[in-house]
Amino acid sequence: MAMRCKRCRAAAVIEVRRHNAAFCRDCFFHYVGQQVTRAIAKHRMLGPADRVLVAVSGGKDSLALWDLLLELGYRADGLYLSLGIGAYSERSRRVCEEFAAARGATLVVHDLAGEHGYAIPEAAGKGGRSSCGVCGLSKRYVFNRAALDGGYDVVATGHNLDDEAAVLFANTLRWDTGSMARQFPVLEATRPGLVKKVKPLYRLAERETAAYCVLKGIDYVVEECPLVAGNTQMRHKETLNRMEEESPGTKHNFLFGYLDRAAELLRVADDAELAECARCGMTTQAPEDPAEAPVCAFCRSKARLVRTLPVVEASTG
Amino acid sequence: MAMRCKRCRAAAVIEVRRHNAAFCRDCFFHYVGQQVTRAIAKHRMLGPADRVLVAVSGGKDSLALWDLLLELGYRADGLYLSLGIGAYSERSRRVCEEFAAARGATLVVHDLAGEHGYAIPEAAGKGGRSSCGVCGLSKRYVFNRAALDGGYDVVATGHNLDDEAAVLFANTLRWDTGSMARQFPVLEATRPGLVKKVKPLYRLAERETAAYCVLKGIDYVVEECPLVAGNTQMRHKETLNRMEEESPGTKHNFLFGYLDRAAELLRVADDAELAECARCGMTTQAPEDPAEAPVCAFCRSKARLVRTLPVVEASTG
Repeated sequence: MAMRCKRCRAAAVIEVRRHNAAFCRDCFFHYVGQQVTRAIAKHRMLGPADRVLVAVSGGKDSLALWDLLLELGYRADGLYLSLGIGAYSERSRRVCEEFAAARGATLVVHDLAGEHGYAIPEAAGKGGRSSCGVCGLSKRYVFNRAALDGGYDVVATGHNLDDEAAVLFANTLRWDTGSMARQFPVLEATRPGLVKKVKPLYRLAERETAAYCVLKGIDYVVEECPLVAGNTQMRHKETLNRMEEESPGTKHNFLFGYLDRAAELLRVADDAELAECARCGMTTQAPEDPAEAPVCAFCRSKARLVRTLPVVEASTG
Repeated sequence: MAMRCKRCRAAAVIEVRRHNAAFCRDCFFHYVGQQVTRAIAKHRMLGPADRVLVAVSGGKDSLALWDLLLELGYRADGLYLSLGIGAYSERSRRVCEEFAAARGATLVVHDLAGEHGYAIPEAAGKGGRSSCGVCGLSKRYVFNRAALDGGYDVVATGHNLDDEAAVLFANTLRWDTGSMARQFPVLEATRPGLVKKVKPLYRLAERETAAYCVLKGIDYVVEECPLVAGNTQMRHKETLNRMEEESPGTKHNFLFGYLDRAAELLRVADDAELAECARCGMTTQAPEDPAEAPVCAFCRSKARLVRTLPVVEASTG
């Protein structure tokens, strides 16, 4: 039995089980645009005059996001941060550059090794963080700082429903209430050193952003990062996928139930006091001992990495 | 390499991975007793003079609980509720009776069909609840009422760490904050019609209560209830077991993290107003419309079941 589009009854190209729906190509684009518009409106993510910096990796989510924001008429530039992961980073950068060129959009490129003295592969395991840990820390820092320096009003990231559900799942399994309290589709700039962050794709599943790119003819890097295999988030995604398979809507109900009913109650757990980093001037958590100079996690990690790297290189030479 | 007991270095008979421990038979009994004593003390579950009614099913958890409470010197009687599940119920009852007889303990027996006019197998699917749904509702009602009528101070149930983690997991996946707010190792009697409920085994894993029974020579019904197969809680237990396998301590951290850090924050979600059931006089949630007479879920379910049962029987004859 051929599936029919829920909106126009034409032959469907994609099924969205959690909404009991299927769509043809055009109506799927309509659905995707609607979900993003709804996310933006509900959480007051973007104003029409805002200058938006989209964090792009070359993957399906961030390119779909950039594409959608441009289509919706937002003033959206891209920011690509080269992480130094060999051919993977090279190809990712090229895909972003080609995307920007085809649309006459502006892509800002930053380079972690050139600007901060370390790349992600060498950083793995040194300084007490996994490669995913260092990568996330570095990206959050560079995106915020680049937006601040470039005079952008907001940073938009491509986190989708699967990403958000997996992060919430991980935090909930440990009841890390501080992190849970800070997980929201929009994070306001509560201090001068912070730029507002928004996640306009949080209502869309991973396979929907992939389908969007495929149907829209957007070339994206399909491979996962070679360093990510077997990390905790991947395992949580598999667990959630198994539950979703048995009971469609599990991820949606988990994430949206949290946002609708629990986030407000946990908000009080976000008791982080903020301060200015003594080294870089960016915003960081205030140290428990008020006599101690505040140094942000990025500066501390960078100092450890840059200190250990030459020694490690010498011993392998 | 033979495992050694963490306490006395003798050959171990059981490993407890989440605590990085292994125990010989005697030290395992010590560990189990310690976990129960700790649960009782931390949540002020039982006083030395309290008359305790232990809800026993004939399974490992409830018989281990009854055994432990008697060993610790509590005044603990058992209550067996016959659910009318054929040979399964017969054998369960016999196991409880033999346990009581061997210890000179008092077993109170109630019979759902004889006292309320329906048994669980016939009730499945009628009246809008699954068999597990009707069973849980019936047990909560009968245990509370029997304790009240018998002048007991507290009802103790055999819920273990796996049970509590699975229920919390189910409620968290939906963010049913009302149910989450009421999930706690102790529920105080906040009204005259309610008896205090306690779960002294909530710190012990399922395989530990099973091992306790085996090592202690307690005969228990090993089979799961024949009606339970494939229910949601079983599926959630399997999911949690897979995660526990990959990362020992997952269940413990999930349940204890909730109790330590989140339960208090969600407490405000328990906004149920209580009232007296107009039919049976027991405590129930007040109806939203204050003009409506409050009727408890048990009385409503029972009325539906007793009304539909003769019709169904006639149609199958």
